[in-house]
Amino acid sequence: MVDYGKYYSSLANNIRASDIRELLALIKHRRDVISFAGGIPDPKLFPKSELADISREAILKYGDEALQYSETKGLIELRETLSDFMRRMKGISADPEDIVVTTGSQQALDIVARSMIDPGDIVVTENPSYLAAIGAFKAAGARLVGVEMDDNGMDTFKLEEKLKSIYSTGGRVKFIYTIPVGHNPAGTTLSYDRRKHLLEIAEKYDVLVVEDDPYSYITYENGVDTTPLKALDRYDRVIYLSTMSKILAPGLRIGWIVAPREVARKFELVKQYLDLHSPTLTQFIVLEAIKKGLVERMIKVATPYYKSKRDAMLSAMEDYFPDYVSYTRPIGGLFIFARVEKEGFNTTKLLEVAINKYKVAYVPGAGFFVDGSGYNTMRINFSYPTHDEIYEGVRRLAQLVKSE
Amino acid sequence: MVDYGKYYSSLANNIRASDIRELLALIKHRRDVISFAGGIPDPKLFPKSELADISREAILKYGDEALQYSETKGLIELRETLSDFMRRMKGISADPEDIVVTTGSQQALDIVARSMIDPGDIVVTENPSYLAAIGAFKAAGARLVGVEMDDNGMDTFKLEEKLKSIYSTGGRVKFIYTIPVGHNPAGTTLSYDRRKHLLEIAEKYDVLVVEDDPYSYITYENGVDTTPLKALDRYDRVIYLSTMSKILAPGLRIGWIVAPREVARKFELVKQYLDLHSPTLTQFIVLEAIKKGLVERMIKVATPYYKSKRDAMLSAMEDYFPDYVSYTRPIGGLFIFARVEKEGFNTTKLLEVAINKYKVAYVPGAGFFVDGSGYNTMRINFSYPTHDEIYEGVRRLAQLVKSE
Repeated sequence: MVDYGKYYSSLANNIRASDIRELLALIKHRRDVISFAGGIPDPKLFPKSELADISREAILKYGDEALQYSETKGLIELRETLSDFMRRMKGISADPEDIVVTTGSQQALDIVARSMIDPGDIVVTENPSYLAAIGAFKAAGARLVGVEMDDNGMDTFKLEEKLKSIYSTGGRVKFIYTIPVGHNPAGTTLSYDRRKHLLEIAEKYDVLVVEDDPYSYITYENGVDTTPLKALDRYDRVIYLSTMSKILAPGLRIGWIVAPREVARKFELVKQYLDLHSPTLTQFIVLEAIKKGLVERMIKVATPYYKSKRDAMLSAMEDYFPDYVSYTRPIGGLFIFARVEKEGFNTTKLLEVAINKYKVAYVPGAGFFVDGSGYNTMRINFSYPTHDEIYEGVRRLAQLVKSE
Repeated sequence: MVDYGKYYSSLANNIRASDIRELLALIKHRRDVISFAGGIPDPKLFPKSELADISREAILKYGDEALQYSETKGLIELRETLSDFMRRMKGISADPEDIVVTTGSQQALDIVARSMIDPGDIVVTENPSYLAAIGAFKAAGARLVGVEMDDNGMDTFKLEEKLKSIYSTGGRVKFIYTIPVGHNPAGTTLSYDRRKHLLEIAEKYDVLVVEDDPYSYITYENGVDTTPLKALDRYDRVIYLSTMSKILAPGLRIGWIVAPREVARKFELVKQYLDLHSPTLTQFIVLEAIKKGLVERMIKVATPYYKSKRDAMLSAMEDYFPDYVSYTRPIGGLFIFARVEKEGFNTTKLLEVAINKYKVAYVPGAGFFVDGSGYNTMRINFSYPTHDEIYEGVRRLAQLVKSE
C-alpha cells in the first residue's frame, strides 16, 4: 500500500472535508427535512426554453468558435457586452480590456488570491465573511483580520482602527475584501456613507479593495442606494467581481473581474495556468442572453419573486422567533442571518439535532467568522424553499431555539 | 497613481507575458502567414448539429439540474459514463469515486500541482515537456528535472539515473510527469517495455506518476500498443489525466482525473476553492455525447482525417527538408518536432523572420525544455492547417532552414 500522505502539498495536507458540509450533503434527498442551508437560485426562474434555443443557435451558427479554444481573458464580444451591461445597470465604466471572464466567481476569488497573496500577507474582511472566499484566501496563505459589522455592514471606523493597529505592528495588508450588497452570510448592505468612507480609507492606508458583488443586481427595496464601490472608485483601487450565477444560471459557470488594466493583465496570465480559458460555449450563451435582454428580463422576474420569499421569511420570523433571536432584514442577496442570544446556544453542535429531531437545516454561522466567534449564529436561505417550506421551516427553527 | 506592483504575490510578480505568445497572437488574422504554431483541433470535425441538439435537449429536459450548481467532483452520471468509456476504450478500470471532472485538463494540471507541490519539491518530466504543465508546476514552486528522450519517448534508464542522483543529494521527488502517447511537443510514444519499466522505477523509488493522456484515443498506426500506464498500474501509483478537447470539443472545457481514492478526495477538496465545480451544462453535453456514441464516432472520423494530415506533413518534410533536419514520425498527437542540426540555428530568434519574410509560423522548441536547451528545435502542428497549407508551409520552413 502506498502512503499518499507524503506526496501532498501543505495545502492538501491542511485541507479537510467539512463535517457540516458532509452532514448537509446527506439531507439533499431527504424529503422530511426543510433545508435553509443552500445558497442556490430557484431553478423555476431559469429561462430554460430561451437558453435552449440560444445554446442550439450558438453551436449551429458559431460552432467553429463556440466549440473551440478561445482567449484566456474571455471572448472579446462578451467583454464588450459585459462592459455595456455594467455601465447600464451599475454605472461602472470598464473598458473591455479591464475585464477578465472567469469560471464562476469562485475562480475570480482564486485568481485574486493567487495573484495578490503570499503566505503571511494580511487580508481584511468583514466578520463574518463568505466561506469560500475565506477558503481561497487561506489556501494562498493569507492571515485574515475581521472587522465588526452592524446592520449597515462593515463598521468603517473599526476598519480604520484595525488598519492602524496592523500597520503599527509592521503588518502588510494586501486588500480589503467586502460584499457590500446583500452580504453572505450577514444579509447586510453597506450604507452609502460607509462606501465612500471605505474608499477614502483604502486611499489613506494605501490598500486595494476587492468588491464581491453577486447580489446587487436583484434588490428588494426601492430607494436604497446600491451603487458599487467600483462605480465610485476615483482612486482606481477597486477590483470588482461579479457573476451570472444569480442573474442567469450558475451551471454556466461564468463570472468576471474588473480591475485596473495592469492588474487585469496579471490576472489573465495567472488564469492561463488555471484552466486556459473559461468554456467558450457558455461564454457564447451568456453573450447572447445579455444581448437578447434575457438577463434583464430575468432580473425583473426574480426581483419580486425573491422579495416575496424574503418577506415570507421575515414575517414567519416575526411570528415565531422569540425576542432573544435577532436577525437581519436584507435588501438583497439570498440570506437572513440570525443570532440567538441564549446562554450556551451553539448552532454548530445543534445542527444534527435540528436535522434529525426538528427536521430543519441551516448553515451554522461559526464557519463564516474569521476569529472563531459566531457560535450562536446561523445563515438561513430564502431563495430556494417554497413559501410553505419557509413558514413551516421557521416554525421548526423556533422550536429548536426555544427547546434546546 | 497607484503602484500595483507591491500588491502582487511572488507568483504574479514572476509571471510574465511570453514574447513568443504575443508574436503568435498577432498572426491569427494574417491570411498571408501559414501557421503551424497552434495545437488546436480542426473545427471541421466538430459534430455541430448533434451537439446543438444535445445541448438544447439537456437544457429543456434537465435544465433544473443542467443550469444549477452541482457537485465539485463532477456529475455522478458523467463519472459513471467516463468510467465505462475508459474501460471500453483503454482498459482502465476506475470507480466513479476515483474520478474528478475538471475544467479542461489544464485545471487537472493545476489541481495536481497545488495538491502535491510545495515550493522546492522536485517534479521529473520528459525533456522537452508540455509548456502549460511546466507552467502550472512552476507556479506551485516546483523544481523541474528533465529526462532525455529518443524516438521511443523518455529514456527510462536515464530516468533511473536521475532519480538516483536526486536521492543521493537528499532531494524530494513528488512525481514523474509524462505524456506517453503522441507527446507534446516531441511527437513520440513511449514503448511498451519502457512503460512497464517506468512503473517499476516508480515503485522502486517510491514516487507517483502523473500520466497526461489527451492523445491516445486517436492514433495513426495499427499494431502500436498505446495501453495507458494507468491500465498497467498494479501498484496504484498513477494519476491519469485526460480531456474531451481532442475527441469532442475544447470549448466545452471538460477534462478528468483518475486517481487513487484518497488522492481523488484531496483533489476534490482543492477544486472547491478553484471553481466550485466545472460547468454543469457542458458536463451534461459530454455525458450525452458519450452515451449517444458521438465521441466514438468522432474518434473514428478524426483518426483517418488527422492521419492523412500527418502523412502529408511527413511527405512534405521528406521532399523539402535538408538532411540536417531530423524530425519525429508521430503515431498520435497533433505535432511533429523538428531539430535543425546547423551551427547557430536558433528557432526563437528566427521566429520573427519566419513570419515576416517566409510567411510561416511554428513554436520555437526552447520553451519546452526544462534545462534551457533546444534552441534549434521547433514544434510543428499538422491538425489545423489544410493539406495545401501543409505542403506550402513546409516548403517555406525548408527555405528558412536553408537560407538563415
